[in-house]
Parts: sequence; C-alpha cells; structure tokens
Amino acid sequence: MQFSERIRAMQSSPIRRLLPFSDEAKKAGKKVYHLNIGQPDIKTPDEYFQAVRNFRVDTIEYATSQGSNDLRDAISDYYKSWDIPYERDDMYITNGGSEALWFIVMTICDVGDELLVPEPFYANYNAFAQASLAKLVPIPTKAEEGFHLPPADVIEKLITPRTRAIWISNPGNPTGAVYTAAELEMLAGIARKHDIYLISDEVYREFTYDGQKFTSLGHMKDVLDRLIMVDSVSKRFSACGARIGCLIIKNREFLAQTLKLCQGRLCVSTLEQVGATGLYRTAKSYLEEVNREYKSRRDTLYRALQEMKGVVCEEPKGAFYVMVKMPVDDAEKFIVWMLQNYDLNGETMMGAPGNGFYATPGQGKSEMRLAYVLKNEDLVRATNILKGALEAYPGRLEAIRA
Amino acid sequence: MQFSERIRAMQSSPIRRLLPFSDEAKKAGKKVYHLNIGQPDIKTPDEYFQAVRNFRVDTIEYATSQGSNDLRDAISDYYKSWDIPYERDDMYITNGGSEALWFIVMTICDVGDELLVPEPFYANYNAFAQASLAKLVPIPTKAEEGFHLPPADVIEKLITPRTRAIWISNPGNPTGAVYTAAELEMLAGIARKHDIYLISDEVYREFTYDGQKFTSLGHMKDVLDRLIMVDSVSKRFSACGARIGCLIIKNREFLAQTLKLCQGRLCVSTLEQVGATGLYRTAKSYLEEVNREYKSRRDTLYRALQEMKGVVCEEPKGAFYVMVKMPVDDAEKFIVWMLQNYDLNGETMMGAPGNGFYATPGQGKSEMRLAYVLKNEDLVRATNILKGALEAYPGRLEAIRA
Repeated sequence: MQFSERIRAMQSSPIRRLLPFSDEAKKAGKKVYHLNIGQPDIKTPDEYFQAVRNFRVDTIEYATSQGSNDLRDAISDYYKSWDIPYERDDMYITNGGSEALWFIVMTICDVGDELLVPEPFYANYNAFAQASLAKLVPIPTKAEEGFHLPPADVIEKLITPRTRAIWISNPGNPTGAVYTAAELEMLAGIARKHDIYLISDEVYREFTYDGQKFTSLGHMKDVLDRLIMVDSVSKRFSACGARIGCLIIKNREFLAQTLKLCQGRLCVSTLEQVGATGLYRTAKSYLEEVNREYKSRRDTLYRALQEMKGVVCEEPKGAFYVMVKMPVDDAEKFIVWMLQNYDLNGETMMGAPGNGFYATPGQGKSEMRLAYVLKNEDLVRATNILKGALEAYPGRLEAIRA
Repeated sequence: MQFSERIRAMQSSPIRRLLPFSDEAKKAGKKVYHLNIGQPDIKTPDEYFQAVRNFRVDTIEYATSQGSNDLRDAISDYYKSWDIPYERDDMYITNGGSEALWFIVMTICDVGDELLVPEPFYANYNAFAQASLAKLVPIPTKAEEGFHLPPADVIEKLITPRTRAIWISNPGNPTGAVYTAAELEMLAGIARKHDIYLISDEVYREFTYDGQKFTSLGHMKDVLDRLIMVDSVSKRFSACGARIGCLIIKNREFLAQTLKLCQGRLCVSTLEQVGATGLYRTAKSYLEEVNREYKSRRDTLYRALQEMKGVVCEEPKGAFYVMVKMPVDDAEKFIVWMLQNYDLNGETMMGAPGNGFYATPGQGKSEMRLAYVLKNEDLVRATNILKGALEAYPGRLEAIRA
C-alpha cells in the first residue's frame, strides 16, 4: 500500500494544521483567541434561519447539479445590484468557493499547467492546484507597496505556453489589498492578449474601507467570456459553515465542461441552498453595518500592531486579514511556543504561519496572518497577549543576536 | 483559452445527461416517471427535521475538517450495531459518499494508476477516476451469473505494478448483486497478497432481500488497515439532498494524508451534520420498514420486466437498481425517443443508458439501468409505458431486421 506522490507533496493548511496545539491549550484550561482563521463572530442574518425553518418537504431530495433556480436567481439579482450582468444560467452553485476553485483548476489544467497568482495568496489555492497536479506561479508583490500588482511587463514575463489563467483574490486574502480599476484593466488586457482565463475570487467584495469604491473584474465587459468569478456566502453573511459558493462565467462551452464535474458529485445540499437564498435576500443595511464593524476592528488591530516594537505591517484596505512581519526566527515555531508556553491570565492567542501563503521557498517564514474576525475587546486582549509573547519569546531576533 | 484534456475526456453522467429531454417532455405537459436516478420517494425520518429545527446558534460557523464529533459518534454507534468496530477517530465526514470517493482516488493514485472495479459499476466512479487521471480497470462480471465475481485467478491477472486498489459497491449499483462472505474473503486475500487497498462503497447496506444476511468487508478483521469504507445517508435515510457521507479506515497514516484534502475544502455543512446526527439516531424499525417497501417494489418491477418480450434481466438481490437488456439498437437513443415521442395518457418514463456504467467500449449499449425508487402504483404505470414504448420503437431489433 502506498500514497500518491500528489498527496505526499501537498502541504497541510497553515490555517488549520496547528489546531492540535490550540486543542491542547484549551485542555489545559486556557482560552484561545483564534485570529488564525477567517471565522467571524458576526451574527448570521436571521433570513437564513427563517428560510431553513420554513422549508417543509417530506423527502430531502437531490437538487439539480447546477444548483437551485431560486438561489441562482437571488445571486443574479445581487450581481445586478453591483452592475454586473450575471444571469441564472451563467452560474453553478458549489460546496463553498473552495469547490468552485477546485473545479476550475480541473476544467482548465492538465498536469504541469500553470496558474499565475499574486503572492502571498490564500493558502488553499496551493491545495487545489497540487491535488490537480497544476502549478502555481507566483507574481511577486511587496508589503511596502501595499501588495499591489507589478507592471504588466513583469507579469507577462511569467507567461509561458503552459499558462492557463491569472488567478486573483480581490480584496486580497491574506494581504488586504484592494486592486484599482487600472490594475484590473491591466490584467484584462494581459488575459486577452495571451488568450488565457481570469479567475477572480471576490468573496470579500463588501469589505473595503476608507471610502474606497470596489471595482470587480466583472466590470470589465470585454473579458466576461474568459472571467471565472468565484463567490461564497461564508464571509459576506458570516455563514462559513453553510458551504455555499458559486462559479460564474459567461461562456456556455466552459459551463458544459464543468457540468461534468458538478454531475459527478451530484449536487450541493438542498437545505443549505434554501438557507442561502434567504441570505441573498438580506437587506443591504446588514452588509453596511458589518462593513463598519470590520473597519473598526481593522483600526483596533492595526493600531495595536503599530505599537509593537519590531513588528512590520501595512494597513489593510480590504477583506479582514493582515500579514504581519515579526522579529522572530520562525513564525510557526513562535505560534506553537505561544500556545504551549505563554498566556496572560489564562488566555492565549493564535495566528496562521505566513509560509503557507507563499509558493516561493523560504518566503513568509517570519510572517503571520491575523484575521480581525473577533469583536474589538477580544482583539485588544489578543494583541496584548501577542505583544507580551513577542517580548518573552526566546527565538526573538534580538534575543538570538544578543 | 482551452479546456484540459482531462475534462474533455470525461463523460457526462448517464444518470443526468438526458435531463434536458425530460425537461422538454415536462414543458410539453407530460408527466415523467424518473427511474433513471436513485432518488427515492420514501420519507426522510422526522429526526432530521427535528434536529435541524432545534439547532439554535447565532453564527453558522465552520465545522472541523474531520466532521462533528456528535455525528461521528453516531456513525460509530451505528457501525457497532453491525458488529464493525469503527470509532470516531477512524472517520471523516464528507460531502456525500461522492467526495469520499474523490478524496480516496487522490490519496492513493497518481497519473495512470489503476483501480480494479467489477463492471458494470456506478457511473460516477469513472468521473472520480478521470478527474484525477487515474484509470479504472474493469473486472468483468456477467448478468447470467447474477453479476457475482469471477474466481481469484481472473482478478489477479488484472493486477499490475500500477494497481492501487480493488473498488467494489456492495450491494451493487447498478447490478443489485450482493457479494457472499466467500467472495469478500477472496478479495481480502488478494488485497493482502498484493498489498493493495480495498474500497467498499456500502451505501445500500440495509437493502438486501429474500432473507439474505449482509456481509461487509468491514467484517474481515485482517484488512481493516487497508479497507477504505465509504458510506452516506442518501439512500439509507432517503436524504439524498443532505450530502452527508463519510470515509472510514483504521489507518492513522492514511487519515493524516487525506486530512490535507479535507482541510483544503475546509469542512462539510454544519447544519447538515446536525440533521445527519438525527438520522443516525433513527429507530431501526424505520430501516426495516423501508427494506420491506423496496422488496415489494423490486418484485413489482421484476415481474413486469419478465413479461416484456425480448427483455432480459436477472432478479436483483440488493440495492434498488436493475440492469435491463432490451431488444433495441441503442438504449440511449431509445430513452430519448421515448421522452420525445411516446406517452400513455400524457405520461412517459425515463431510465439511465447502460453504456455509462461500463469502461469497456461498446458494452452496455442495449442496456438500461432502472431504479425502483417510486411507489408500486407508479412502477406499474412506468413499466406499462416501457412495454408499450418497446413495442412501438422504430429501432427495435426485430423492426430493424424485418
């Protein structure tokens, strides 16, 4: 008996692989503030629970492989409110945005085909590519430039005959970057010129701060046939456990190919599609309120980080993450050390090691991704713990050098 | 822009690809009896609805990637009632049995690796293998032998250095075959001798008829470290749309590898896991009653088929399918013709074309899989339609020869 090379080559999720250590800390009686994972404490809209409770059938039947018409119509209406002309038949409902991304990779990539991704990127992009034997090719971005894209010629130099798509997350996880209309037009131009796809993961669309107007790749009308939009209710409606996402493209041939994968797994949960239809009918005021809340949390976290000696980070402009460079030998070791050895009044905290968000070996070793998904008072406690832990950590760079 | 070779090589689901034709028939005002898909009209136990309605939280959070402890404990108890010693930590909850199978293929197969599968097999096995670039190698079985397995030496001749597993469905979809303890012992012996895995899809475990005792590969204690059990609530509890399955193996190293895939897609629906926990706590009397109902439907369908001239099939012993050989030029053409051109008092019916259940080219062309998932009176109507359609069909073999 053996394991496949593909599975052995896969890395574990940096967001989840250290959970055994936080479980140990909890067993030892400590409270753990989870800034490692994008699991908000925001309430899920009541529309979800109402829809679920009102669903009356005798038999929980399969849904169609494409997804329910009611949900797809609700998503279509939502996109039209963003001035993006997606119709019911342009989309499939998926098991979270994750399954949509997995299906996209399989639809466009054979073994060794390449996908250009601004680095750092959402760690699980690596999982979807590796499981399908495709290859992520990083587009380097810099913290000091707010993780914005390099000029077109830098990106075009990375394109080879194996390149199948440029794959972005906007607003960016883990960077918090929000791309400008000019950046998106540049990407659209490159995709047309080189005849490749665009993949846009926009699950944090509502979460931009400081009065910025969000521009979507879906606003670039001349790439809608090559733009694969990925979306999810997880973050927008604080319903991560509902596992409802979607894949959208104005390209019938693409949809015909991907349908084979959708039919292979039969369908997405019937009841969750009912709940998600409720979510997409939630009043806009909910999203506005949530945006204000995240803005406030962003400010709390960023202010606290700026006061920590040796900690470097840029103010995130969107989503609810920040990549933090710390004065430590190894961020993963530091996180484990903190869970095992450091607490303030019985409380400790957890981030996600930065190395998992890079494909380039050695990158991100001293970085950590923090998610500002907890209420302000919890963020204050968590950052106080982090500050104290950084001062006490034996692997702190000054400590090593001294 | 191009599509991957892998997606172009994938076949469409024979169970679902003809749905546009049944949609057309419905638009034209016809009623369609769906014997093409294993979607029972049996009631889902009330325990599901109660559990879902009683679930009270503020936020629908991610579940763990492994699956909820409550559900895994309920499944463990269920297996112990079958005298199979599976514990919570031996299993992961998956998006239906489908995702479990997909993850298994990726965990054990690289490009071109081989999986031995008794043929005909559940059509989507092809999808899972093709999407992962693995190869199904058919173990031939014969209708006239009740689709039972050939002797060990026939199976062993198919084993190559690329063989990773023997993959069965028991009771069999689409064959209705129920393997004997002797057959399962033979498979266990082959797997040990050649050091390969066993994959056992036992989602129809409760559906065996005529007083047969069901034996599971899980009863073969000396292969539990190489046996990957796949299960689902879909058929057992008539909850196909809940999309709750599981993958079970007594092998820590295997589970550590597969966990990377589980973490990649984060988790399975939180609410559906709550509902499924209710299902696994359903009284055994529900399953006994459902078994009696399917037995009665099997008898109704089989009796009607025997009365059709030129139709050949064996009495199925388990699951709720029968493979039917028909006196037609091409079963797929016949099904489409029936949906477009034939009705009895405004009613027509639909089966699944048999070719999709074979990997061997040309096999199954005149066959159709029928699912006896509708109540007896509907089965009587559906088989009357089938009988009339077979007589009227211009591609009937006698008609062609005449």
